Amino acid sequence: MRFNSLQGTILLAGFVTYVVMGALVFEILEKENHQKLQDGMFHLKEDFFLNYTKLTPAEVESFLAKLVEYLQMGIYPIETHAENVESSWDFVNSFYFVGTVLSTIGYGHISPRTKEGQIFCVIFALFGVPFCLICLNYIGFLVSRLFQCCAKILCGKGNKKSPRYMLLFMLLGVIMFVILPSFLFKWVEAWTYQESVYYTFITLTTIGFGDYLIGRKYDRPYFWGYRMIAAAWITFGLAWISVLFQIVSALLAPANPQRKRRR
Amino acid sequence: MRFNSLQGTILLAGFVTYVVMGALVFEILEKENHQKLQDGMFHLKEDFFLNYTKLTPAEVESFLAKLVEYLQMGIYPIETHAENVESSWDFVNSFYFVGTVLSTIGYGHISPRTKEGQIFCVIFALFGVPFCLICLNYIGFLVSRLFQCCAKILCGKGNKKSPRYMLLFMLLGVIMFVILPSFLFKWVEAWTYQESVYYTFITLTTIGFGDYLIGRKYDRPYFWGYRMIAAAWITFGLAWISVLFQIVSALLAPANPQRKRRR
Repeated sequence: MRFNSLQGTILLAGFVTYVVMGALVFEILEKENHQKLQDGMFHLKEDFFLNYTKLTPAEVESFLAKLVEYLQMGIYPIETHAENVESSWDFVNSFYFVGTVLSTIGYGHISPRTKEGQIFCVIFALFGVPFCLICLNYIGFLVSRLFQCCAKILCGKGNKKSPRYMLLFMLLGVIMFVILPSFLFKWVEAWTYQESVYYTFITLTTIGFGDYLIGRKYDRPYFWGYRMIAAAWITFGLAWISVLFQIVSALLAPANPQRKRRR
Repeated sequence: MRFNSLQGTILLAGFVTYVVMGALVFEILEKENHQKLQDGMFHLKEDFFLNYTKLTPAEVESFLAKLVEYLQMGIYPIETHAENVESSWDFVNSFYFVGTVLSTIGYGHISPRTKEGQIFCVIFALFGVPFCLICLNYIGFLVSRLFQCCAKILCGKGNKKSPRYMLLFMLLGVIMFVILPSFLFKWVEAWTYQESVYYTFITLTTIGFGDYLIGRKYDRPYFWGYRMIAAAWITFGLAWISVLFQIVSALLAPANPQRKRRR
């Protein structure tokens, strides 16, 4: 599918609207339940702290089992006061969650826990994932145009399908979306460079284990706009991957009769 | 890409070899470290159980913080004796892990923790994810042939590109890969039907939060072959999705000049 600038702008505006609406709905559906779970966990912890010196080992074990259950639902018991903890389903987190769903990264550090949230998630992703793919394809087309300009500067007037251009497309992408962002994450998140590359790779392939996450450490000072830079990185990185994938598919299918006929 | 039966068999055999080798390497790289972490957690817990009646609240809080760290690394503190707990990196789990990487589902309930494991994961997925996609495409081609036979029986001699056939391909797939497996999961995992559909959907779209997992509850009796049925479901389900995706892409791009020329 090819879009002209106007169609492309409408497409992206539509997608942003879809994402914002989705984030709002998830916030409405999940916030209250999350707050309840959080309160439950804090009461559990409060009770434990009041009585633990008198509890039997079996009672302590049962407390730990309940704690693990809460953790598996994404409720973290580090802070002692409920009011200090940001809700995981405020708009910013909800927006971030929607992004991980539509891109199919699915870190899973938060996920819908209510019946309504889960049903909405299925319906939302059913239309949203293809919508996201179409948008990424369009953004990828813009990225490839940008890279073509770079190619012209670096290697003279280049053919879009020449091996030299493809190599440049790959190399520039690896530098822009893997090597440079990894330096940023290493610095901001205090990871090793190898951990940063691992995170970058696991995210851009949409595997998304959720074992490393950015912008989630309470004790680290994040600079203003860090999350926005990260969002832009994921968006353009995934778009680059989608175009790269098309290029590689085309290379792997040289015996396509339609392409032969065109020559 | 189209393969004949021999090429297809070689392709799939190659892929199975790749997966088995990968699972073995992950087992070697991660098992020892996982065992160490598990031992660390059990010592932490043992110490706590021996002394908790004498600890100050701050010391208990620090114990909980360490426990959360272990949990985030996939070490669960429910069982009290280390010898009762299966290692998360035995061959079966390692194989299952490799499957979630190559399909990009990435549940994240286990993920490599050693430097070597993470580096290997990046290199393994770099070649493995495209390899997996090619295999899924071939399996999808087989699934679509099977469905074509069904279509012939149900609607007479059908054209592969007729809307009626496409609808049938979609409907049969939804029944075989969403509706029926959800009944199985509801029954075996003791989930609600809605939770099963949610799990099925989140897995087949490769979002893979990891909030629901099959075959992982220590207290549930799983019948023999359950995991194999689940693996077959994921494989054929993803193959079906990949073909469905191609069909939908073709429908969404009616103005493709190459297709016009062929008519």
